[in-house]
Amino acid sequence: MKKSALFCLIFVLSNCWMWVTCAESQQATDKKIIHDGEYYILQAQNANKWASDDKVVDEKLAEFRKNNGGKPPNVLYILVDDVGFGEMGNPTLNHVRGYKTPRINDLAKQSLRLARMYTEPSCTPTRVAFMTGRQPYRMGMGETSVALSGFGLPDNEVTLAEVLSNVGYNTSHVGKWHMGDIEEAYPTNQGFDYAAFPIHQQAQLALFSNDNQNANQLIGLDSRQYGDTYTLDNGFRPVPGAMVTGVEGFKGKSVKEVDMQPGEEWTQQKYREMNERYQRQAITQLRKLAKEGKPFFLQYWPLLPLTFTRADVDQYKTPNGGSQVEAMQEFDGWLGQILDEMEQLGIADNTILIFMGDNGNFTRYQPYSGFSPMVYRGGKGDTTEGGVRVDAFVRWPGMIEANSIAGDIIHVSDLFTSIARLAGATDQIPTDRLIDGVDQTAMMLIGDTHGRRDTVFLYSGPVLQAVVKEQYKLHMPPKGENFIGANWYDLFRDPREEYPVSTQIGAWAAASMIDILKRHQMSKQRFPDTPPAFGRPYTGIVNLRPESKALVEAFMSWQAKK
Amino acid sequence: MKKSALFCLIFVLSNCWMWVTCAESQQATDKKIIHDGEYYILQAQNANKWASDDKVVDEKLAEFRKNNGGKPPNVLYILVDDVGFGEMGNPTLNHVRGYKTPRINDLAKQSLRLARMYTEPSCTPTRVAFMTGRQPYRMGMGETSVALSGFGLPDNEVTLAEVLSNVGYNTSHVGKWHMGDIEEAYPTNQGFDYAAFPIHQQAQLALFSNDNQNANQLIGLDSRQYGDTYTLDNGFRPVPGAMVTGVEGFKGKSVKEVDMQPGEEWTQQKYREMNERYQRQAITQLRKLAKEGKPFFLQYWPLLPLTFTRADVDQYKTPNGGSQVEAMQEFDGWLGQILDEMEQLGIADNTILIFMGDNGNFTRYQPYSGFSPMVYRGGKGDTTEGGVRVDAFVRWPGMIEANSIAGDIIHVSDLFTSIARLAGATDQIPTDRLIDGVDQTAMMLIGDTHGRRDTVFLYSGPVLQAVVKEQYKLHMPPKGENFIGANWYDLFRDPREEYPVSTQIGAWAAASMIDILKRHQMSKQRFPDTPPAFGRPYTGIVNLRPESKALVEAFMSWQAKK
Repeated sequence: MKKSALFCLIFVLSNCWMWVTCAESQQATDKKIIHDGEYYILQAQNANKWASDDKVVDEKLAEFRKNNGGKPPNVLYILVDDVGFGEMGNPTLNHVRGYKTPRINDLAKQSLRLARMYTEPSCTPTRVAFMTGRQPYRMGMGETSVALSGFGLPDNEVTLAEVLSNVGYNTSHVGKWHMGDIEEAYPTNQGFDYAAFPIHQQAQLALFSNDNQNANQLIGLDSRQYGDTYTLDNGFRPVPGAMVTGVEGFKGKSVKEVDMQPGEEWTQQKYREMNERYQRQAITQLRKLAKEGKPFFLQYWPLLPLTFTRADVDQYKTPNGGSQVEAMQEFDGWLGQILDEMEQLGIADNTILIFMGDNGNFTRYQPYSGFSPMVYRGGKGDTTEGGVRVDAFVRWPGMIEANSIAGDIIHVSDLFTSIARLAGATDQIPTDRLIDGVDQTAMMLIGDTHGRRDTVFLYSGPVLQAVVKEQYKLHMPPKGENFIGANWYDLFRDPREEYPVSTQIGAWAAASMIDILKRHQMSKQRFPDTPPAFGRPYTGIVNLRPESKALVEAFMSWQAKK
Repeated sequence: MKKSALFCLIFVLSNCWMWVTCAESQQATDKKIIHDGEYYILQAQNANKWASDDKVVDEKLAEFRKNNGGKPPNVLYILVDDVGFGEMGNPTLNHVRGYKTPRINDLAKQSLRLARMYTEPSCTPTRVAFMTGRQPYRMGMGETSVALSGFGLPDNEVTLAEVLSNVGYNTSHVGKWHMGDIEEAYPTNQGFDYAAFPIHQQAQLALFSNDNQNANQLIGLDSRQYGDTYTLDNGFRPVPGAMVTGVEGFKGKSVKEVDMQPGEEWTQQKYREMNERYQRQAITQLRKLAKEGKPFFLQYWPLLPLTFTRADVDQYKTPNGGSQVEAMQEFDGWLGQILDEMEQLGIADNTILIFMGDNGNFTRYQPYSGFSPMVYRGGKGDTTEGGVRVDAFVRWPGMIEANSIAGDIIHVSDLFTSIARLAGATDQIPTDRLIDGVDQTAMMLIGDTHGRRDTVFLYSGPVLQAVVKEQYKLHMPPKGENFIGANWYDLFRDPREEYPVSTQIGAWAAASMIDILKRHQMSKQRFPDTPPAFGRPYTGIVNLRPESKALVEAFMSWQAKK
């Protein structure tokens, strides 16, 4: 969190409640936001349409506020883990997969489906892109950590929680965070009034326990195997339960680990209880926030359905029976609880609900998980569409057309910029850095063909792997190979990227694509990529267990030698 | 057509109109039909449920007849060519593919979706299975012919047209037939009162013309190339337009080739006109049949969307632009014409409309065609799900629940047996041979989980390639390899058959599957596979062109030597 943002927040909180926003100021501010090159190419060609759309959007938003006591909408953002395109809100494909998600399917019918939503290829980078409106390679957050990492989202990034806090929103985070195990990266230090979250993610929580290591999926990877023969390093294999599990806390304060005592064993049963706790806390937060009279921003990022074993379950409940599919069906009921709660609280109509997956299916655990690749090729970790395309739904009764579909390209970072606008907070978006997220409110409020993006740069960590422009996709050639050998795909004719069309469109498209790449490079020269924040893990936790402290010491052993 | 069937038909036609059917007789007759082994395994375990379902079905059918002047429903069967699973009636996947089919999607909403419809892996065998209720390997019809073939569906097979004629239906066929170029195989000799059809299929009609051979998709395959250098056989490369194109005729009579004069060039434009003609004729037949007071069975099997070039089209109408996708979108409008016509004729409610693809996408023409593999792996010609799974819809307002889905396994041959029952013609199904098609009327009229099949034997020509049982699929090992090396797949967890689960389920499933295979072999010992009918092509055509005659002479040259 930047100091200026903090100041602004205090100013708003200490004064009376007042919304200062108008169509003119929104658009004027928007022009100061710095985007990547392609945005300006599109803007030059579509200026009239965008201006006319902006007018409609501003009128709709003004009308909403008038009817909502002068307040902008609440925002509830539910992000499920590792659920790829086609798995949600499509009854026919439910039948392909062998499970049922009636509540998700109902929600899909009430929503605008963002049929071409791109994410980053894994958990951390997608979450960073949403939180900051910036693609994660820009600040070194493109890679996912599994265990101790000693890095995280830098303090000087401006998150959506900060942007919305600045215009008076209450903000809460519940569930997976996964943007670093260092103090400055915790959500309570990144703009959230309240957060309940595990420091790490599911590899630790759902793999690093003895019962899960006994399960079939981990044969040969049990951390206890061969420990008495040639092993020199007892820390190479994980020490179950040593890492910090779930913590909770308030803005700017230290956090506290909950539900784990020193020496206690971490089990699949405890992991299940953690999932259930986040579900309860999401509902608790919803109730609390709904009562407080201010608009709110709640993000609930369940750890489900990503899980690895079902050691805690006696009987499958789906014909599929895969560990993640079973978890998905269970989560369907949990989503239903939240939808019902929204109805009961009377906030269904003045809350924008966004529901989506964070990246493609985790195909490395097939066929056990039950979610193999389906419509698109590849999965989590890949920059083929299977890794970066997800089902995404936006519901806002009366404002966004129910049961509609937008085929326009959208990237998860666009939600940052779009939610800021819907909240009247566009002028809180920093203008001293490049913002990848473009304003897609017109697509949300007017519908299909009103998008403002036709390009996505797909990175794996810091490396550009593919570029999407319209229906075409360029796979970057391996490092050192000539661009002329790069493969091109037509995503409509060949969604699985199996039949290159290089010879067909090469004549014009290669030239156009080189233009795009050059513009992208120019923007990176002006705003160079920077590293993430590095530091000692687990500071700012008031009740660190001895085994966790030992883990940090071992992890920091290189620094100790300095 | 068998003589006894013919006799029975004449009897019905020469007497007054009378429907003799009741629940008791239906079920009694059904018990005489001989099925493959797995049917009896299921029957033994589900007898009570089936009996109770049969009661419901019979009551519903009796009620319908009472309200329909004592008559059973009309049947309209529309079979589109080479459109795999996921391409029809799924707006989200329309967005993936980049085209729009509003009419098909509307129809899907009005229908029961048969989400697990299996076909045979290509055109001819699927059509044979539907027409006879028997899988095509049983009578040597498992392979598809492209050019002259001199074989076809034997006279002694009993087609659905014959079955329905026997209980007083008027029957017409319009469009692709593709069950042989010998006289006894023509639809007019297989039970249809009237038929308008091309003797061959699209390879001849949409590839064997000079303008299409000039198109990009056929570079290097132009029949005129190198004709003056090393060529000894001028007949190896096709002679455009020499084969018989579209013919028309009436039951038992010779047919007549239409719209081609001797020496005339066959072009893409003429092919387009042929497609348009069949569309017109389908509507003409609908009008004619609707007025005749008898129930009717009309099958319209368009040649679309399978096509190979768009040489006749100036401008793409879809973002996809692939030749087959463009044709599909065009056909969507044509389907709309038919639906509108049904409304106008007042027959929407008393006509069962079945709409489906005949096999998976024709993936050999990628990415040009626009229909590459998507949800499932493989396409036409493969026995992976991509080759044999299609979208299928059944509409019968008031009788079949709109906007519903059945996940039960169904095979295209089941439509034979089911339509016969819906028409009150179960006792016309021959009982002297093995019938693969099982009665699925309960699934249609009651819905999901009321199916009567859990096994499909997937053949490629005469060779068993895979066996589906429930969610499991066995890929038969290559000839000569031990069964223990066979790969197994869980179709829910892994719809694309990429991650074998052999080691997981081998312990029990291999034993169970060997039981299934043994029962299947027993049934084949009692009812051995027989060859197709062989003969001289093109007899029974009154106006055979000289170039077609020459083609037959060349084709028959081996016989001439005898």
